[in-house]
Amino acid sequence: MARTLEHIAQAAGCTVDAKDPGLSITGAAPFDEAGPGQITLAADKKLVKRIGDTRASAVIVGKDAPPAGVPLLRADNPRLAFARVVGLFFSPPVQAPGVHPAASVGVGFACGDDPSIAPGAVIGNNVTAGHRLTVGPNAVVEDNVVLGDDVIIRANAVIGWGCALGSRVIVHSGAVIGSDGFGYATGEDGRMFKVPQTGTVQIGDDVEIGANCAIDRATFGATVIGNGVKTDNLVHVAHNVTVGEATVLVAQCGISGSTKIGRNCVILGQAGLADHLTVGDFTMVGAQAGVGEDLAGGQMVSGTPAIPHRVWLRVTRLIKRLPDIHNRLKALEKKVRDLEGGHGTSL
Amino acid sequence: MARTLEHIAQAAGCTVDAKDPGLSITGAAPFDEAGPGQITLAADKKLVKRIGDTRASAVIVGKDAPPAGVPLLRADNPRLAFARVVGLFFSPPVQAPGVHPAASVGVGFACGDDPSIAPGAVIGNNVTAGHRLTVGPNAVVEDNVVLGDDVIIRANAVIGWGCALGSRVIVHSGAVIGSDGFGYATGEDGRMFKVPQTGTVQIGDDVEIGANCAIDRATFGATVIGNGVKTDNLVHVAHNVTVGEATVLVAQCGISGSTKIGRNCVILGQAGLADHLTVGDFTMVGAQAGVGEDLAGGQMVSGTPAIPHRVWLRVTRLIKRLPDIHNRLKALEKKVRDLEGGHGTSL
Amino acid sequence: MARTLEHIAQAAGCTVDAKDPGLSITGAAPFDEAGPGQITLAADKKLVKRIGDTRASAVIVGKDAPPAGVPLLRADNPRLAFARVVGLFFSPPVQAPGVHPAASVGVGFACGDDPSIAPGAVIGNNVTAGHRLTVGPNAVVEDNVVLGDDVIIRANAVIGWGCALGSRVIVHSGAVIGSDGFGYATGEDGRMFKVPQTGTVQIGDDVEIGANCAIDRATFGATVIGNGVKTDNLVHVAHNVTVGEATVLVAQCGISGSTKIGRNCVILGQAGLADHLTVGDFTMVGAQAGVGEDLAGGQMVSGTPAIPHRVWLRVTRLIKRLPDIHNRLKALEKKVRDLEGGHGTSL
Repeated sequence: MARTLEHIAQAAGCTVDAKDPGLSITGAAPFDEAGPGQITLAADKKLVKRIGDTRASAVIVGKDAPPAGVPLLRADNPRLAFARVVGLFFSPPVQAPGVHPAASVGVGFACGDDPSIAPGAVIGNNVTAGHRLTVGPNAVVEDNVVLGDDVIIRANAVIGWGCALGSRVIVHSGAVIGSDGFGYATGEDGRMFKVPQTGTVQIGDDVEIGANCAIDRATFGATVIGNGVKTDNLVHVAHNVTVGEATVLVAQCGISGSTKIGRNCVILGQAGLADHLTVGDFTMVGAQAGVGEDLAGGQMVSGTPAIPHRVWLRVTRLIKRLPDIHNRLKALEKKVRDLEGGHGTSL
Repeated sequence: MARTLEHIAQAAGCTVDAKDPGLSITGAAPFDEAGPGQITLAADKKLVKRIGDTRASAVIVGKDAPPAGVPLLRADNPRLAFARVVGLFFSPPVQAPGVHPAASVGVGFACGDDPSIAPGAVIGNNVTAGHRLTVGPNAVVEDNVVLGDDVIIRANAVIGWGCALGSRVIVHSGAVIGSDGFGYATGEDGRMFKVPQTGTVQIGDDVEIGANCAIDRATFGATVIGNGVKTDNLVHVAHNVTVGEATVLVAQCGISGSTKIGRNCVILGQAGLADHLTVGDFTMVGAQAGVGEDLAGGQMVSGTPAIPHRVWLRVTRLIKRLPDIHNRLKALEKKVRDLEGGHGTSL
Repeated sequence: MARTLEHIAQAAGCTVDAKDPGLSITGAAPFDEAGPGQITLAADKKLVKRIGDTRASAVIVGKDAPPAGVPLLRADNPRLAFARVVGLFFSPPVQAPGVHPAASVGVGFACGDDPSIAPGAVIGNNVTAGHRLTVGPNAVVEDNVVLGDDVIIRANAVIGWGCALGSRVIVHSGAVIGSDGFGYATGEDGRMFKVPQTGTVQIGDDVEIGANCAIDRATFGATVIGNGVKTDNLVHVAHNVTVGEATVLVAQCGISGSTKIGRNCVILGQAGLADHLTVGDFTMVGAQAGVGEDLAGGQMVSGTPAIPHRVWLRVTRLIKRLPDIHNRLKALEKKVRDLEGGHGTSL
């Protein structure tokens, strides 16, 4: 699996800054762990300064990093170049090709070339898929699901009836796509009657859904996950939500019903968005924030209820000083009482 | 699937306010999406005002809505009537009847009429179920489980040994009922010894459990989920919790061990309740709230630690003004110093 | 299943303080539920005072509890003794021995004595396990996994390729070990490119992982879960995290990438830790706390952002008084204005 520096540079879009472009590289590793034969990454200034410390045989750096005693590959985007290089040396295990005899496939299954359906996988009726479909062990694809090319559904994930996934989508283990939305009509006696959830989930291309996420189907129409969206683990997306292109939902955040999130947003871990909100493009929502109002794009908010992040930073510095602030207020009250009493000075 | 307005009115408990009760309706859709042939809902005043905008052929409204140029169905509870109407036109896909040959069923399985056990489903020994049991693909029902009539266990859900579910219960995909409670005795050296979790989970009638929830079995006795309880996705219910009738647990909330929640409560998203609490009937806990003390019924609380919602609203308006408040305090301190110094005026 | 008091005392490391050490005990139950023939626990002073109320035939107490009218077993650690006693009378149902014909086992499976592989379980290629392996229905163990002795993997759990678990590990239903870490390199156009997640998860001995948890594999190397760690349900552990020995992660907490938690820590429910942090030994993080900075060991923190728990307690008492504090500030401002105006007294 060894590759020359030159080959790596070409594959990752780098220029070679080394005496021997034919240098043989056998793997990639992080800065402090890489050893002889390996290539590593020094993306930030801190590591670039420490570049003499590495035991790696080559380092990927930015275009403007100073020359070093170690062979360099220079990239406009060193992190991205390194991700590509890692992919040159590593592939996750590939499932055996074909439909395993211990899989269960319904009628009307139409898929492209080279499917891999693992033991225990269950595929419903009238499922359509593109090329190179991978369905992991004990994963379930219900009736009338439509899947693009190069879709990977990992072990024990569930794709509910009628949902559609684009190409190059990865659904991690235990994730559930297309559970019923949480909708009830309340009777006079407080009993709740289920509102039928007639819609689906529509997922674009290049989406990755984390382990044990739950994405509900729409009441009508579709819950929409745009192209390039990435969700971390244990994320909740309610019915009729729309998540814009390239938006990131970090672990354990939750998006309530019918909320529309724009493109290139980042919703950090454990944050929650109320229902029926509109969140503009390029919004960042801080970890554990609680958003109860619409957000214009291009800003960061934090806190519950969420406020602009810069204000939140100032506020949180003061919150921990509240006991001191309160004591100062009490002292002032005493002084003012004294002044009012005509003493002129306190104590 | 077309139905007359009159038929729909009868099925949903509405009165017809239209010239032609024989008008043919082919489906139901939301206000802004409904088209010719469809019936829609205008439950709130905003939509009632916009009733002339709809392209729907009929609209469900309240008893006191004004007459309109479009055929109306009038209901005491328009949302509930609409939910029923949606159910007239839509049914989720029904699993094939019978026990699929790729299912695995233990000894002593006793069930009523018309079971549907999907491929990959595993049913343990001595499981008892009522009529019309549906067990989805790769779902697991462990030994000695008792299920009522019309129970639906969706794909990849797990019902642990000894648990009991009432009738008309829906368990969504990936939910786990009857995992071990989280109980340990700590040894002198800090090591934790598992306290055997000997109890079960008892779930009433008309309960719905969301995708990827986890409801733990009791240490002794039972974790109890009352009739009509609805849980959204990714909800955690610890051992020995009791959830009262018709209470709603919204997504990602968590209920700690032995806490007792009354009836008709709403625990909003990402809220957390500490252990061994008693929460009275008709309590509402705000999103992301953290409840550490008992709550009398009939109130709403918010915040961490939770306080009455009305106080919380005032508090949160002030929290974001803390920098201003602090500046005002500093200015006052200076003024008082000046006053004490005998200058009489500040600056 | 009856056992004498003497036998129980020996098994649980207690001394007998009773006239008849041959007294027959048939079970264990909590203080208020135990009846004749059963043994119960009075671990805290409150219950010791109420010891006359119990209907139990024997009570486990501390070494220094006063004599009582009921037979006593005395233990240094009564809770631990009681946990052991419960285990004398109760065992969870045991899966049938052997590899069920409806399980699917890959090539190169090497395991010790007495495995129990349930129907629907899928074991990949080159899996190695110790003695008494239990794999539940529809659980998945991917390729190249290494498991110690007495490992129990419950229904529908997933152990990802290459992960390693020590001995006496329990993985509850729906948990996912070894999902891909959440790592992307962002391109100039905002698109995210997946960083291959080449590492694994390494889990020590005596670990218990709760239902529907998600523990990601490392980008390089391993996400490490130390000996004796216990995680509650729905916990998220990101890539390259290290969790020290005997640390407890309570339900729905989340640990971000590369954070290192020391030993004997307790991370309470719904708390969140940011990435790349170091948390010292014996740290306690309060429920719903948000930790954004390194923590030295031996302290408790609460709040978002987290502050010392004692400060947080004082702060939260003041936060709810903010409306009053603000009113007092306004009143002071008026008084000072009056004083400045030379009136001497307010009002």
